[in-house]
Amino acid sequence: MRHTISILVENKFGVLARIAGMFSGRGFNIETLNVGPMMDPSLSRITATIVGDSESLEQAIKQVNKLINVIEVTEFSDGTATERELIMLKVSAPAAKRSEIMQVCDIFRAKIIDVAAATMNIEMTGNANKVQAFLDLIQPYGITEMARTGNLALKRG
Amino acid sequence: MRHTISILVENKFGVLARIAGMFSGRGFNIETLNVGPMMDPSLSRITATIVGDSESLEQAIKQVNKLINVIEVTEFSDGTATERELIMLKVSAPAAKRSEIMQVCDIFRAKIIDVAAATMNIEMTGNANKVQAFLDLIQPYGITEMARTGNLALKRG
Repeated sequence: MRHTISILVENKFGVLARIAGMFSGRGFNIETLNVGPMMDPSLSRITATIVGDSESLEQAIKQVNKLINVIEVTEFSDGTATERELIMLKVSAPAAKRSEIMQVCDIFRAKIIDVAAATMNIEMTGNANKVQAFLDLIQPYGITEMARTGNLALKRG
Repeated sequence: MRHTISILVENKFGVLARIAGMFSGRGFNIETLNVGPMMDPSLSRITATIVGDSESLEQAIKQVNKLINVIEVTEFSDGTATERELIMLKVSAPAAKRSEIMQVCDIFRAKIIDVAAATMNIEMTGNANKVQAFLDLIQPYGITEMARTGNLALKRG
């Protein structure tokens, strides 16, 4: 089962290595991960999606909570959070294919951020399903490079 | 100095912990980090921004390149890559303030993804400068929650 976990940490040396080590040491695979700064520059938030059974994850979360520099751990269960990720793609786009690709981008509200003679760079956000649907449509044109954040999650309402 | 590094890895157990450990063991602070899947599910791409002097970073990159399960390491120097990050915010937004906040969102092409009686959830992408400018305008309304990916980078043209 896939779990989304949000961890507020003090922005101190080695805290990410300790947390990643804690999960991998217990046999969890970290599928996606984001670390970004907060308004208070002494804090960072780590958002991770982790695959594993719920019971042993519960144990691991308790251990993470005890780690030095960890302030708060939240687990998002299904449906309580809005989830988004960001992808950036370089797509093979000769002039004759550009308008087709731009149509697909339009439908998915993706943004074209750079154009060269034979390629386009595209930026797109959405939940995992929307991102996958977009990738399925774009892949036939030829994706030559891709960068992708992990899942971000924010509690609803 | 801040460096953006992109690392293509095999999606194997513990690879993130090894890489994070390698940088923190050499005294580098990882400022932001993303780990996301590739089209080939056996691969992931790690994008990290790291602060440190260029020479010792060069050494660290060589070491990372030698790690098991690491396929390729790219360092982006200034201006050669398009950079983007994604933020999600919960903003205090009583009915009387909603239209003001929506105007700011409009200007920055931010999307409102959830509305409740007294709050709004907002999603926004941009480079670090644009994100900071947006945050500066939204902060006075009261940011009650925030999640933020690290920097993603894609080579131009």
